[in-house]
Amino acid sequence: MVNVEVYGDFKATCTQRVLILLEELNLKYSVKKIDLMKGEQKDPEYLKLNPFGKVPAIEYGDRTLFESRSILRYIAKNNVDIEDLLGDTDTDLWLEVESQHFNPPASKIVYEKVFKKWFDETQKPDEDVLLESVKQLEKVLDIYEERLGNHNYISGDNYTIADISHIPYINQLLRCGYKEVFKSRTNVYKWVKRIIKRENVQYVLSEAK
Amino acid sequence: MVNVEVYGDFKATCTQRVLILLEELNLKYSVKKIDLMKGEQKDPEYLKLNPFGKVPAIEYGDRTLFESRSILRYIAKNNVDIEDLLGDTDTDLWLEVESQHFNPPASKIVYEKVFKKWFDETQKPDEDVLLESVKQLEKVLDIYEERLGNHNYISGDNYTIADISHIPYINQLLRCGYKEVFKSRTNVYKWVKRIIKRENVQYVLSEAK
Repeated sequence: MVNVEVYGDFKATCTQRVLILLEELNLKYSVKKIDLMKGEQKDPEYLKLNPFGKVPAIEYGDRTLFESRSILRYIAKNNVDIEDLLGDTDTDLWLEVESQHFNPPASKIVYEKVFKKWFDETQKPDEDVLLESVKQLEKVLDIYEERLGNHNYISGDNYTIADISHIPYINQLLRCGYKEVFKSRTNVYKWVKRIIKRENVQYVLSEAK
Repeated sequence: MVNVEVYGDFKATCTQRVLILLEELNLKYSVKKIDLMKGEQKDPEYLKLNPFGKVPAIEYGDRTLFESRSILRYIAKNNVDIEDLLGDTDTDLWLEVESQHFNPPASKIVYEKVFKKWFDETQKPDEDVLLESVKQLEKVLDIYEERLGNHNYISGDNYTIADISHIPYINQLLRCGYKEVFKSRTNVYKWVKRIIKRENVQYVLSEAK
């Protein structure tokens, strides 16, 4: 069985995305901490793993990979006994929807409300960016609400990497005052609880504290 | 042989991405124009194809798909005799790099310089956004410059969907005054010429006029 070496930080959303999948698949892995507070993601040694200077990167067997969503697809593809998680075309499509539609407003809100302060406590959120991003996010969730009326999970009837990819930012949004955008949409909120309450997910998120 | 129905507009960058691949694979397709100037991407009939109201969407056999990069992966995967274009893990990784690193600044610049005026001729580009985006784009191209010193194409030795995905915005940037960001980087500029001068690419881009 391959050992996966994850370079990243339990606190970083994109690292969490990968860790949740590894936990779900019960794969052997270890985490090599790249301390974002110290800027270690820009160290020359780390840049050899990921020239863009972002976490996570992984070593999977003899391969080095970065970009969390590409890592999700690669790991899923290489663990065929759990083909459900890899899913079908809809999984790829809705993983892309997460990337192009959900992530842009969600990550902006979380940056303004949470991450900005991590690096400099005096920083205040930009209210215009928040307002615009919430509006954008609500439009996306309206479409999800309709879809999740017919499906238990975002890409269909199974829990897939498309769901996993949403979890880290949903978790942050729930914790920084945006529970209502989910709760006001019945199907979305049921889905959120369904995916976030999974034992493996809770384990990864609790390690972030 | 499957006929592919493309809903979109030759002028739209994300539609071009898909058309270039279809031309490259010599697949049979037809284009059903969704006129962005008339806002047809928000018509209820079109929203049944893509609830997010963006072009393109495609019908491929009995499947309906949207999200251009997901469409690229799907079409490549389903045309196994040309496996080079689908490529390996590096193709997926560098397609993701295009999506997460190249596309955000490139699309902002093109929006400010080109698309803004399409909808309202009195609109002026936001110079702060341009400045910040060009800075971001240059950082990405510095990393490409190093990579393309060792490879003829962005994901390795073959022309893949990762290259194709870059073409529409590179084309726009070349035409709206940003040739120099490519030209000042020798390897990047060689790559740009290599991919953009392909006959199929030129055909699709010329249809946009």
